[in-house]
Amino acid sequence: MIVHILSTGDEVLLGDIVDTNSAHLCRAVKDMGYKVQKITAVGDDVEKIASAITDISVCADICLVTGGLGPTSDDVTALACSRAAGEECEIDQEALTSMKAYFVKRGYELTRENEKQAMLPAGSKMMTNHNGTAPGFFMTLNQCLFFFMPGVPREMKVMMETEVKPVLSQRFGQAHGIFIERITVFGLGESGAGALLNGFHEIFPGMRLGFRVDFPVIEVKIILSDGLQEKEAAASKIKKAKDWVMERLQNKVVSEKGLSIPEEVGRLLAGQRKTLAVAESCTGGLISSMITDVAGSSEYFLFSGVTYSNDAKINILGVQKKTIIDHGAVHEETAREMAMGARLKAGADFGISTTGIAGPGGGTLAKPVGMVCIGLAGKDVSRAKTYRFAFDDREMNKKIFAVTALELLRRHLTGVPETS
Amino acid sequence: MIVHILSTGDEVLLGDIVDTNSAHLCRAVKDMGYKVQKITAVGDDVEKIASAITDISVCADICLVTGGLGPTSDDVTALACSRAAGEECEIDQEALTSMKAYFVKRGYELTRENEKQAMLPAGSKMMTNHNGTAPGFFMTLNQCLFFFMPGVPREMKVMMETEVKPVLSQRFGQAHGIFIERITVFGLGESGAGALLNGFHEIFPGMRLGFRVDFPVIEVKIILSDGLQEKEAAASKIKKAKDWVMERLQNKVVSEKGLSIPEEVGRLLAGQRKTLAVAESCTGGLISSMITDVAGSSEYFLFSGVTYSNDAKINILGVQKKTIIDHGAVHEETAREMAMGARLKAGADFGISTTGIAGPGGGTLAKPVGMVCIGLAGKDVSRAKTYRFAFDDREMNKKIFAVTALELLRRHLTGVPETS
Repeated sequence: MIVHILSTGDEVLLGDIVDTNSAHLCRAVKDMGYKVQKITAVGDDVEKIASAITDISVCADICLVTGGLGPTSDDVTALACSRAAGEECEIDQEALTSMKAYFVKRGYELTRENEKQAMLPAGSKMMTNHNGTAPGFFMTLNQCLFFFMPGVPREMKVMMETEVKPVLSQRFGQAHGIFIERITVFGLGESGAGALLNGFHEIFPGMRLGFRVDFPVIEVKIILSDGLQEKEAAASKIKKAKDWVMERLQNKVVSEKGLSIPEEVGRLLAGQRKTLAVAESCTGGLISSMITDVAGSSEYFLFSGVTYSNDAKINILGVQKKTIIDHGAVHEETAREMAMGARLKAGADFGISTTGIAGPGGGTLAKPVGMVCIGLAGKDVSRAKTYRFAFDDREMNKKIFAVTALELLRRHLTGVPETS
Repeated sequence: MIVHILSTGDEVLLGDIVDTNSAHLCRAVKDMGYKVQKITAVGDDVEKIASAITDISVCADICLVTGGLGPTSDDVTALACSRAAGEECEIDQEALTSMKAYFVKRGYELTRENEKQAMLPAGSKMMTNHNGTAPGFFMTLNQCLFFFMPGVPREMKVMMETEVKPVLSQRFGQAHGIFIERITVFGLGESGAGALLNGFHEIFPGMRLGFRVDFPVIEVKIILSDGLQEKEAAASKIKKAKDWVMERLQNKVVSEKGLSIPEEVGRLLAGQRKTLAVAESCTGGLISSMITDVAGSSEYFLFSGVTYSNDAKINILGVQKKTIIDHGAVHEETAREMAMGARLKAGADFGISTTGIAGPGGGTLAKPVGMVCIGLAGKDVSRAKTYRFAFDDREMNKKIFAVTALELLRRHLTGVPETS
């Protein structure tokens, strides 16, 4: 089953908006067991849209089209479709009735511009728009079944669910299909992970690996997409492959369910009924922000002291003045006292801390940009460790420092040794 | 000049990521005075990429390709390009040398997987990757000049600026002289800003407006691109247009130089030699993280207390227990005391605070998701204000709460009334 997406509209080609519609449709198609083969985006131009429709009509089975169904003069998709089909556009009575009902319900009057929206290509079948005025429609050209939907995301999403999916299911049935397992990896580059997983394709024919980098973390995907597998057989196949991958990646695996590091740390803390406090210097609040991006984090996250100044480290976190005078702010002893201080101040089970040099300025030979000391404190633990990263970018350093601190805690919570 | 974009990678077609690369490239092309005619996205498949390259090579003049240059087995773009060209891939010595230098600098060893990245199609010309290991390359197929860039956004963006643009300018010239002024706007949606600026094109023929949304902030661009203007004449023209735009947007303008809100607040604080402390509840560290993304922020930023729990608000920031018992954590009085507490604890000139409901849970009829109280404290000021936003997304709420707090401070620092 070959599925294409055609996205129309100048705003995408001018870069004014990011094409989130296509991403949404890709996921919807994947959920039905198919995979999109190609996405095409063209501007608001009758000839270009008609030509794209003709091209797609001879090489795809299904095409999902978005955009260009509105009331203004730059909305030309229905016209383009009729051109490609060699048909006229004509008033669709069902569409007109449905639009009138939509307007009456809201106390508006139908304008002439709106009436244009009921002009559909002859031979097409109207689809109701539950969230707006522009009706959609579907029709077959050559070998391909085209679905035309509005470009407004909330209108398109509802139409996909309530109008397009039922037609697809009825005509093609649910495919079997794509089984995906996701593993979150930290501490390896994409090439390092690839090297460790060399040989996968020979051992597991019919399956493949995908890699997605979300710096500094990598998501490794194990993908089984060869056709009409029984669910159980597929699950057993993919489990074997996953075990093999996990064995190879060893302690670089952060989550075997594809969770982010803050999600995994949150899951562990909530499961163990433990609470956390943070003391941040160079990460500047990023650790806290990552933790609190996870809904429900108030269950385990109590406090973070973002102590940029030395006075704040001393007065608020209780770091000893002597420590900073003797060793400076970027030092393991300072990190250790920061973590302990945050933990005590907030009455938390655990404290973690960061103090380092994010750059671009502030580095020295002894303490270069990219160096960070991370502290960990708990009832039975109080220590710190130094890491050196080689990025010159402030935001990248903040990110990798933050993730490293969370990973130190994660390993402590799971009992994995944190060295290596 | 016909410009196409080809985006490669399964992650786009599976809907795992939104194709922001293409949006970025569309804007970059637009800034050079051209417009992208078509975007195509295909998966990590040699045949499909090669076929897309062949199709594009006979109908476009320039094609910008992203993705598939990495070290792993699913990175097949160079191979696909060589297939389309009927050439072999071979080790490019310049690429290998450049990669070795990148690795040596960071103390890593080159793996065999990385060496694969130096295999480029015969006849292509290598482009340096300043932010990663995968070199890019460009080559002509049929009538079309193809530029192949990595899919990692920060690598691609830098390569577009430093490698692709100079080649394009040299071969095709700058389309026109382009003069752009940027204005940062907060408190208006894209359509709201567009409505206020209605009539621009009639008053300023030959100029146009561009809008870029970086939620919740909008960048309005005034673009003068009609031809070989004298620099001074162009500057005077664009100044008039800018004055008109600023007049229309009034107090929604945050920076007339296109600075971000944290940059503008930092500029004002540093200029007035004032310091800042923050108390964050619902924003969870995001304000601090935004402030400390700005290099040099240690000059004015002292401390942020991310007090998620009530105990932390009371014990660390000195909010009165009675206030929380009487009014709850989300209340103007609590916000006021949080801002005062952070300011006093850190000995800062100003304190700002947030306490609200980011969602998705935790909302009530009286205090719904999207409500936030923001406090401001200084030598002569101590007050708080309630805002209600209508987003149901946790990350969007955190962002708009954080920006609103910084904007309250910015208006105070500039003497602009903060109501409206």
